[in-house]
Amino acid sequence: MPIITFLSDYGLEGAFVGACHGVMVQVCPKARIIDVTHGIPRHDIRIGALALRDALPYLPKGVNLAVVDPEVGGERLAIAIRAMDGRYFVGPDTGMLQPALARIGGIAEAANISNTPHRLRPTSATFHGRDIFSPVTARLALGDSLEDVGELIDPSSLVQYELPKPLVTDDTVLARVLTVDRFGNAVLNLERDDLGKVSLRPNTKVELTCNGNSSMVRFTQTFADVPLGDGLLYVDAQGMLALAVNQGSAASTFGLELDTEISIRRPAAAIDI
Amino acid sequence: MPIITFLSDYGLEGAFVGACHGVMVQVCPKARIIDVTHGIPRHDIRIGALALRDALPYLPKGVNLAVVDPEVGGERLAIAIRAMDGRYFVGPDTGMLQPALARIGGIAEAANISNTPHRLRPTSATFHGRDIFSPVTARLALGDSLEDVGELIDPSSLVQYELPKPLVTDDTVLARVLTVDRFGNAVLNLERDDLGKVSLRPNTKVELTCNGNSSMVRFTQTFADVPLGDGLLYVDAQGMLALAVNQGSAASTFGLELDTEISIRRPAAAIDI
Amino acid sequence: MPIITFLSDYGLEGAFVGACHGVMVQVCPKARIIDVTHGIPRHDIRIGALALRDALPYLPKGVNLAVVDPEVGGERLAIAIRAMDGRYFVGPDTGMLQPALARIGGIAEAANISNTPHRLRPTSATFHGRDIFSPVTARLALGDSLEDVGELIDPSSLVQYELPKPLVTDDTVLARVLTVDRFGNAVLNLERDDLGKVSLRPNTKVELTCNGNSSMVRFTQTFADVPLGDGLLYVDAQGMLALAVNQGSAASTFGLELDTEISIRRPAAAIDI
Repeated sequence: MPIITFLSDYGLEGAFVGACHGVMVQVCPKARIIDVTHGIPRHDIRIGALALRDALPYLPKGVNLAVVDPEVGGERLAIAIRAMDGRYFVGPDTGMLQPALARIGGIAEAANISNTPHRLRPTSATFHGRDIFSPVTARLALGDSLEDVGELIDPSSLVQYELPKPLVTDDTVLARVLTVDRFGNAVLNLERDDLGKVSLRPNTKVELTCNGNSSMVRFTQTFADVPLGDGLLYVDAQGMLALAVNQGSAASTFGLELDTEISIRRPAAAIDI
Repeated sequence: MPIITFLSDYGLEGAFVGACHGVMVQVCPKARIIDVTHGIPRHDIRIGALALRDALPYLPKGVNLAVVDPEVGGERLAIAIRAMDGRYFVGPDTGMLQPALARIGGIAEAANISNTPHRLRPTSATFHGRDIFSPVTARLALGDSLEDVGELIDPSSLVQYELPKPLVTDDTVLARVLTVDRFGNAVLNLERDDLGKVSLRPNTKVELTCNGNSSMVRFTQTFADVPLGDGLLYVDAQGMLALAVNQGSAASTFGLELDTEISIRRPAAAIDI
Repeated sequence: MPIITFLSDYGLEGAFVGACHGVMVQVCPKARIIDVTHGIPRHDIRIGALALRDALPYLPKGVNLAVVDPEVGGERLAIAIRAMDGRYFVGPDTGMLQPALARIGGIAEAANISNTPHRLRPTSATFHGRDIFSPVTARLALGDSLEDVGELIDPSSLVQYELPKPLVTDDTVLARVLTVDRFGNAVLNLERDDLGKVSLRPNTKVELTCNGNSSMVRFTQTFADVPLGDGLLYVDAQGMLALAVNQGSAASTFGLELDTEISIRRPAAAIDI
């Protein structure tokens, strides 16, 4: 059974997602469609890039439709990509696919599908998810090649996108909030190894500063390691450092929003917990 | 594989939709169920009618379950319809199906399914989606005829429903806001041709008046045709005229709500842009 | 086709649910996955227990994945259960499954799956839905036994959970609000028979007291039995007593929240309506 995965900022209030499903099912009736999420905040390339990159290792191989499209109807290309590991990707050329592609070995082949013969007619100027991306996704799920759905282009000509990098100094890491989930957990732009660089190790306390306030927070394994209502720094389910509050919201406790700067400092003497 | 599509105002917070899926899958295990949307505002026949009408051309042929049911448990009929184009529809007789049916050639046959032999027992007074509409939908997906699921009735006896019509005068169209989507885009009760009647043509400016304020707005193809934050009048993905703000919200910029009246006037001299 | 049902508090904003689907589809490509709901309020065992118990009679037999997991990463067990009626259940051992199991004859067999050989590696401390529960659910859907996925344990050692019981006196029932749905309908911890105990019968008025205010409310069959905007007490679609307002919100009309106490008193002389 061909696999299609679908991620977007369309939301579920209206029939955007349903119409795309309808188009894909008509082109490729046997496809199984997995909705990764349609709750990406409107036009938020970064949240979309992270959600796709982090979900990808758990998705079966297939065609990944990913649409966050602030410039729909403008000059940006519509693209399809074959990755080095055999997965396909379809969406607008916003860079959103790049962090996921970087993790799986990069791009084998790319195509401009803006004028794909498979687009629906009339082609709307504002809903390419339905009129261009869905039929192309379903054609690839049927077994079409990139050449069947568009014109091959140089992968290096695609829009690039990199996530913000942390600043690591002697005993401090200067990080940023990448995402805040519905539980108020905040993911930072830090991977597990980044804390090692400043000799931070699990089961110690760290000095956390954000919005001008400092506090000591446990760097620990899991929520249940700290008392109810206490903050913790932990490695999340995607291998990223994150801030949480046990059965509470780190976002409201620490005043965290997207891009809030957070400095994490190793205390002069490590405090075991 | 039989196709069922499902639209409702049940929302996804509770298990209403899940229970309906469960019932349908038990009756017709092979059906593919496409959730069109469950985000219709509670009891809003008009939004539901528009969402169904506009999604329908993109949905594979099958049985369309559409439930927005303000009078559940009251006198209104439960109905099933076979359309002239072969599609089936199931839901309460609220008129909500009528705009979609009008677009596909009207009704071939209708049945009262209020006492269908396929209803679940006990039949609740408040959740006909699960107890009446889901089993009938699944029976039709299995191949049952309307006579198998209910009693044939005169299609002209069904509740009628028409969307509000615009008022077209010499140089002005008086329209209304039909829907506002999550992005703040407002769809008007105007089709592409209505603006032609007052000699409005693409790539000009029009005078827009609502809530007592007038402004000049571009009538153009797509969001990217205007600067960030500017308003635009455009033909949306369903062929309807809509108001938007490039990467902003027309609803908040112009103070638009459902049924807000908007007059669109052709300037004395057309202003090309 | 093997059936999996999936209920959680993960929400649809992020890719939690999508990642679980991805894992399950890889392990058991033929499974049909029915999303019961992912809108359980965060960590709310009671709402989750009610939603599962009430949806279950409408779900096809299969494996029911149910994850509301306030102590993920802590000491609580991860469990799989075979019920007396042949259904399987997978989730954290929070007691949330118990009300559903009590309705279908109880537990035939239980297993601790915390160290299941089928867990994903590395196993995150915070997302057992993806790393432990999803692969086990899919293995059971493939036909594995409980012994294949974990170690059998004594069912009586599992966390118990009971819903609050009403207090029935001479002419009064003291009840509580168990849930409030998106329409503002409030389900009480009363089953149909509880009102019979105080000789309350349909189509009479009852004296309802909550938040210190009393009013007469009709005990009736359905919304349409009372005028627009009037309150009613009715038997809901799950056989529970509930408070509603016809085309309004009982929650806002009566000031109802979870656990709000409500006394329902039979008037000295029954008032027929």
